[in-house]
Amino acid sequence: MKSFSDRLIEVLREKGSPVVVGLDPQLQSLPSEIKTRNFQRYGRNLKGASRAVLEFNRRILDVISPHVGVVKLQIAFYEVLGPHGIDSYQKTARFALKRGLLVIGDIKRGDVGHTAEAYAEAHLGKVDIDGLTTQGYGVDAVTLNPYLGGDSISPFLKTAKAYGKGLFIVVKSTNPSSKDFQDRRCGTRRLCELVAGEVNDWGSGLVGKSGYSAVGAVVAAGSPALGRRLRRLMPRAFFLVPGYGAQGTKAEDIRPYFNADGYGAIVSSSRAIIFAYKNPLWKKKYGRKHGEKDWERAVEDAVLRMRQDVSRALGRGR
Amino acid sequence: MKSFSDRLIEVLREKGSPVVVGLDPQLQSLPSEIKTRNFQRYGRNLKGASRAVLEFNRRILDVISPHVGVVKLQIAFYEVLGPHGIDSYQKTARFALKRGLLVIGDIKRGDVGHTAEAYAEAHLGKVDIDGLTTQGYGVDAVTLNPYLGGDSISPFLKTAKAYGKGLFIVVKSTNPSSKDFQDRRCGTRRLCELVAGEVNDWGSGLVGKSGYSAVGAVVAAGSPALGRRLRRLMPRAFFLVPGYGAQGTKAEDIRPYFNADGYGAIVSSSRAIIFAYKNPLWKKKYGRKHGEKDWERAVEDAVLRMRQDVSRALGRGR
Repeated sequence: MKSFSDRLIEVLREKGSPVVVGLDPQLQSLPSEIKTRNFQRYGRNLKGASRAVLEFNRRILDVISPHVGVVKLQIAFYEVLGPHGIDSYQKTARFALKRGLLVIGDIKRGDVGHTAEAYAEAHLGKVDIDGLTTQGYGVDAVTLNPYLGGDSISPFLKTAKAYGKGLFIVVKSTNPSSKDFQDRRCGTRRLCELVAGEVNDWGSGLVGKSGYSAVGAVVAAGSPALGRRLRRLMPRAFFLVPGYGAQGTKAEDIRPYFNADGYGAIVSSSRAIIFAYKNPLWKKKYGRKHGEKDWERAVEDAVLRMRQDVSRALGRGR
Repeated sequence: MKSFSDRLIEVLREKGSPVVVGLDPQLQSLPSEIKTRNFQRYGRNLKGASRAVLEFNRRILDVISPHVGVVKLQIAFYEVLGPHGIDSYQKTARFALKRGLLVIGDIKRGDVGHTAEAYAEAHLGKVDIDGLTTQGYGVDAVTLNPYLGGDSISPFLKTAKAYGKGLFIVVKSTNPSSKDFQDRRCGTRRLCELVAGEVNDWGSGLVGKSGYSAVGAVVAAGSPALGRRLRRLMPRAFFLVPGYGAQGTKAEDIRPYFNADGYGAIVSSSRAIIFAYKNPLWKKKYGRKHGEKDWERAVEDAVLRMRQDVSRALGRGR
């Protein structure tokens, strides 16, 4: 079985960019034509909302799949819509997989023993119905929270190994309050550095042919110095880097997140891409009404612009 | 609006016990008669499994609701069954609420910004469908993971305040690897003690008439010394204490988790109650076949025994 890191590198090579698009379909921001149609058909309720989300995602995937190799689904925006929302999560993932994209489930789960096993089976493995197995959510990788320690991660390591899947452990998150605990000095190191050390260990049994591990880390954009330090602590880990484009982060700042081989990080943007039509600059260019009608063009423009910025920052021309 | 802590104390008074039953319905352990019937009716698939889980839970709730005031649903065991499983989670919660029980959603979520808001609305609040609001999962409280810090908790504080709901932040988990990070010394305190200090602060705006806050903590059973220390750091917090009955924990050990007024902790047991019919002692007493047939009596016996043990340990006779 091909390891996750080898599959990831393959798709990054094919698409020529480390850009990841986050499918965080907040209902309120969806183009109104999609909502109207789905509410008419299924009702202005959780089912109608879930169907609107699914249509929105499918159309985005049609637009972006020539340009990016990886998408990230933030499960909260599906979970909030109840069982129908979870159904749209699963269907979006399947649709993206069919398009040849790698899918990261941004679930940030973290729990103990049998519970962690259930989560691992559900999201990365197969679900056992008294001897009959059935596919779980079927994504390629998930994000996890490290606070509960090694034995909360190990069921996922086992599943990742069995099915060629990947993990991204939250080391340093994008929010201001990430300082509350992640930046606390514990002995000679900060907590996030201690976590990074463990991530490196956890991943040591899952290194692919590429030299990269299936166990990666979530590392917020915006701090080149920290990126460099964490890079040294986790040389074989892929970094999933959220927060790009937000809070004044510059493309150049993410350079230290990569290794010298040009791999080792994937850079994620969500709302700035999928809701690009709400960007004041776009609105100004095309006018409010027209802007919304052309929301797919806005998505494509935004993703191409991000590809270009990131490539330039990494010194790869365009 | 009545605060969560006041509602909690009311139901604990009414039932006369701090016992919480965890509804962690692992499919493989369900009594076979329930599985057979539901598989015949709905198929041996995720739907049939979800329906089996729902029937199992309902029957447990019928048995336990005279004896306990609070149930805890570990969402992983529902999430693993896909959209149908989430449907059974929601229906189980509603059924328990109708029976007058308080319901804790053991979700251990933790995320940033808009994502945290979506989770808070979903689990504790109302979901907005473009101006029409609809009920979310509707539980009374959820468990949360603190690793992402204060602003990952604040949307839940806001929702808890608006709807009279509660939170239990994971401070110290039951698993051996909880030592990996939670026990690390960061300056003069352990990380879990730092988290406890924050939990106390986060809860300061949500104190009910009882003097207890709506912001509680998950604190593993098994360490009276740590329990005492955390009690001092979070005097107004209710502790949700998992791990009772496992790994040689004695009932006496949980005494320091309570305040002098006899409140301040609720003690949770899951598999030892709901799958009591699989307990070797029960099997020996009634024989294997008979044991499974009488699984509801085993549940009731187990819950009554736990009530008694906990009461005795707290010096309240039976």
